[in-house]
Amino acid sequence: MTKPFMFEKPLGMRDTLPVLFETKAAIRNKMSDEIKKWGYQFIETPALEYYETIGEESAILDQKLFKLLDKQGHTLVLRPDMTTPIARVAASKLLDKRIPLRLAYCANVYRAQQREGGRPAEFEQMGIECIGNKSVSADAEMIALLVDALKAAGLQDFKIAIGHIGFLQELFLSVLGNEERASVLRKFLYEKNYVGYREHVKSLTLSSIDKQRLIEFSALRGGEATLSKALGLLEGDAGRETLSELQELAALLKEFGVDQYVSFDLTLVSHMSYYTGMLFEVYAGQVGSPIGSGGRYDNLLEKFGWNAPATGFAVRMDRLVQALGEPQQEMVSELVLFSPERRIEAFESAKAKRAEGKIVTIQDLNAVQDVDAFTKTFSEVHFFVGNGGSKQ
Amino acid sequence: MTKPFMFEKPLGMRDTLPVLFETKAAIRNKMSDEIKKWGYQFIETPALEYYETIGEESAILDQKLFKLLDKQGHTLVLRPDMTTPIARVAASKLLDKRIPLRLAYCANVYRAQQREGGRPAEFEQMGIECIGNKSVSADAEMIALLVDALKAAGLQDFKIAIGHIGFLQELFLSVLGNEERASVLRKFLYEKNYVGYREHVKSLTLSSIDKQRLIEFSALRGGEATLSKALGLLEGDAGRETLSELQELAALLKEFGVDQYVSFDLTLVSHMSYYTGMLFEVYAGQVGSPIGSGGRYDNLLEKFGWNAPATGFAVRMDRLVQALGEPQQEMVSELVLFSPERRIEAFESAKAKRAEGKIVTIQDLNAVQDVDAFTKTFSEVHFFVGNGGSKQ
Repeated sequence: MTKPFMFEKPLGMRDTLPVLFETKAAIRNKMSDEIKKWGYQFIETPALEYYETIGEESAILDQKLFKLLDKQGHTLVLRPDMTTPIARVAASKLLDKRIPLRLAYCANVYRAQQREGGRPAEFEQMGIECIGNKSVSADAEMIALLVDALKAAGLQDFKIAIGHIGFLQELFLSVLGNEERASVLRKFLYEKNYVGYREHVKSLTLSSIDKQRLIEFSALRGGEATLSKALGLLEGDAGRETLSELQELAALLKEFGVDQYVSFDLTLVSHMSYYTGMLFEVYAGQVGSPIGSGGRYDNLLEKFGWNAPATGFAVRMDRLVQALGEPQQEMVSELVLFSPERRIEAFESAKAKRAEGKIVTIQDLNAVQDVDAFTKTFSEVHFFVGNGGSKQ
Repeated sequence: MTKPFMFEKPLGMRDTLPVLFETKAAIRNKMSDEIKKWGYQFIETPALEYYETIGEESAILDQKLFKLLDKQGHTLVLRPDMTTPIARVAASKLLDKRIPLRLAYCANVYRAQQREGGRPAEFEQMGIECIGNKSVSADAEMIALLVDALKAAGLQDFKIAIGHIGFLQELFLSVLGNEERASVLRKFLYEKNYVGYREHVKSLTLSSIDKQRLIEFSALRGGEATLSKALGLLEGDAGRETLSELQELAALLKEFGVDQYVSFDLTLVSHMSYYTGMLFEVYAGQVGSPIGSGGRYDNLLEKFGWNAPATGFAVRMDRLVQALGEPQQEMVSELVLFSPERRIEAFESAKAKRAEGKIVTIQDLNAVQDVDAFTKTFSEVHFFVGNGGSKQ
């Protein structure tokens, strides 16, 4: 353990300098305006929560939690996600007048990194949760609103892949017979290791027909036709209902006019273990990791004492900023540079310009060490110096 | 140690529900717009910092720090203030083109509470720092901008009390002879315990003239005349220069047109030990604690390797919201309630209304358990149900 250098920050922690700050702020405002227009209400929850209430339910690996002890001896965590705290607030019935409940958030979440590698340990998520709503139209609303929010942020080139954890699970259990064998295959899919998946399927003691079904399943990605192909893989009732949910979802997404942004990927598995139904990931442009994800989680609220179905999504703001590519222009400020004898004039001039909506920095000339370097960073410089006129 | 109840939050941690969220957001936007107009650039720093770099320099009592260990064995802290992280960023010279440097922030800071008592352990601060600027006009700029920012937020009834830690310290040392005795008196002033202060002065072994000077000093609060009175207490040079700084500041504040918001309080002592010059506190309406504070800190940047003078302020957003009193109106949403057969119409209607800037919630009627309770929470309800017309 070496002493940190004076400017160092903990692993995965970053500063956001002015240009990126304004870029993020502009995107955040456009997205949150769209989310509000759909009737979602923003709330904020604390950065620290009890491990026993939020940490354990959050579906984030224990080793990724930032933990600390409070003075009373409880273990606290820095919130690793927002869905669980929102579930806590929703279940506390402080907001129970309007069910289905539509809540939104924009907040930093915290996931400890094990090693240097460029992944942030603190990152901003904007998301929504629709709670107490078991209809497929609520799931469709998630995707339609996600499309509108991303478009409002300025994103054009993106694709939402939709799967269904229930379908995958029912198919696996009906073919493999037990959860242990299903979990091995799920892990290959979670890692998007399709080669490993196929090798593993071949090694299983299964009929060649069942092996073929599992192999064909692993290729179930594409347009709406994917759903008909999936139907062809079924024997008996297992998976039929979940598939018809996806078919209804597909119809709804057409009606919302967002079907061109959508494809189906029935092999989709999330690291968030609380999903129970349809789930999705958004990919954009050249960004390698999903810029957002979501899905239905019908059992999480129950852990807070309210047996309510729910569905939601979260967008990773850092990846969205990366996908958009265009940084905000640096804030353009004019400069009013003054010497003491003319400062009244200077202050009045700055005030008048600000009233017109301009950005104006005022500066006492005597306190500037390198006037050339300083003035160079402004769009315009107004000198109120000596007894001459205003040199521009 | 009892297991926390499922809805419980750690000591001093709070949820912000929709009405308060929007109230805070509106105030935050108005204030930050004004701060930007003065040429300040917003940045963000991480919630977690190394204890050895930020925790130790932050002037916050060690027992108020939230500490945790990272996997490398370093102690981390949740940032207890923003001035120290901003000093770290400024000194790292990532932004060194424009000196004096003008930076702003709006962020939550974290201070552990020892017991239940209503004080938040997480609270939002908006503030600015002007770094590399030793002029009194920079100090005046802090106060002028603070006035404009509070007025932009809608606050009218507020008062800024200005002191000077250098004046107090020089007077104390010249009368008392050593720092140990000075620190005892400072503590009384910090606690605003003027009775205790006077009792203590009476008990000291000092000439009756010196006792009288210290007693008179403790009443140095009021308008600009306070500064002349302070001059009358001096013997020799000690305190003269700091007082003339305050006189220049008073003149500048008149020129900025903000003198009506200002009074002087030469007994002002801050809990932030890094202040070296003028310092101030803002009080508003019925709020018992200061809604903001600031001052000059010429030695903090040096700890990060840059010997630069600096001055700044921070506003406590929770207390400002309390001072403003007026909560934002609850977001008014219309409701489009639909049954499956008319959902296309419903989606189109909602889309058209949103395009007009309206807030419109869409909801599948079949997924609502208590339609009366649900519809009651909306400003207008549009039914797209059955084959009839649009019932309003």
